[in-house]
Amino acid sequence: MERFSIQTDQRETVVDITGKVRDAVKSSGIREGICIVYIPHTTAGVTINENADPSVKADIRSVLMKLVPEGRQYRHLEGNADSHVKATMTGSSVSVIVESGVLQLGTWQGIQFCEFDGPRTRQVWVKILGAV
Amino acid sequence: MERFSIQTDQRETVVDITGKVRDAVKSSGIREGICIVYIPHTTAGVTINENADPSVKADIRSVLMKLVPEGRQYRHLEGNADSHVKATMTGSSVSVIVESGVLQLGTWQGIQFCEFDGPRTRQVWVKILGAV
Amino acid sequence: MERFSIQTDQRETVVDITGKVRDAVKSSGIREGICIVYIPHTTAGVTINENADPSVKADIRSVLMKLVPEGRQYRHLEGNADSHVKATMTGSSVSVIVESGVLQLGTWQGIQFCEFDGPRTRQVWVKILGAV
Repeated sequence: MERFSIQTDQRETVVDITGKVRDAVKSSGIREGICIVYIPHTTAGVTINENADPSVKADIRSVLMKLVPEGRQYRHLEGNADSHVKATMTGSSVSVIVESGVLQLGTWQGIQFCEFDGPRTRQVWVKILGAV
Repeated sequence: MERFSIQTDQRETVVDITGKVRDAVKSSGIREGICIVYIPHTTAGVTINENADPSVKADIRSVLMKLVPEGRQYRHLEGNADSHVKATMTGSSVSVIVESGVLQLGTWQGIQFCEFDGPRTRQVWVKILGAV
Repeated sequence: MERFSIQTDQRETVVDITGKVRDAVKSSGIREGICIVYIPHTTAGVTINENADPSVKADIRSVLMKLVPEGRQYRHLEGNADSHVKATMTGSSVSVIVESGVLQLGTWQGIQFCEFDGPRTRQVWVKILGAV
């Protein structure tokens, strides 16, 4: 397993981690298979979406903040119940195909870490499973 | 493939299945790879989230019930249209890394079956794919 | 990697692609493993849900249109900010177990391409990873 950490700077923010995942694929030496990007946290998630225009990341954040607002209307009393729900709505991992040692993303796609309870230092785990 | 069943006791409920998935990993004998937990139903899903405080599971349920309420406003006439939509919002599988024969979850993470049209007996399928 | 394309005929629509994924599994010749269905777009997604009654697909579309409405309230100025957010809410890939050369879906499950910014010609990538 490859690992790296990232530092987030707001309570809720979407951060591009594509370059770091590409580095992990290179380090693995695996030419063909599947890359799993896994977030070992319960108030953060990961998604694949447009990277070119930063406003897409801002819109993802805004919609989730509106649908699952921060506040006192929840049972979980740590003030981050909304963060846990947002983590479930985005998901804890993404899977990307690897061919010829290269992560196969669509033209506009990037891999984006979704922070819902920052700012914090967070871990990202990457496992590349080679094809038989 | 490993399989187990669980019995849910309410229409909508979030149930921890981490122990049963850990048992499936052990049974497989695989030391390193990826574990896929797959739900073969269309009105239930699976997520990874906090397990320590049961209020997190209650909050996930409540938010989904509020965003996609049960009722007669849907086209699907079996009374469980909302359950199908909630299944799509949580997802039909999760992927977790396996190292040294152990499921690699973050400190607070558990694997949680999401029932949206219970009570029912449900199946969970687990496939562990070994690293080459 | 296997690939196929589909043509969507509306801005937002849910299209069954199960048959095409089954064909890709057959073409791969792999008998046991995991099938990853990956969407290389940022305004489309993929989900697993009921296929028998087409009203379920219509309800998934309607709920997402209501939760994340099309409009001018977003920062991304291309008119499809809602489409990007819906893509994150459904997800960019699904994982399905393969046994005896056959995709292991539950009785009522189908694999469904989710178009959020059509009509367009879209690509679907399929990777089957064999078990060791």
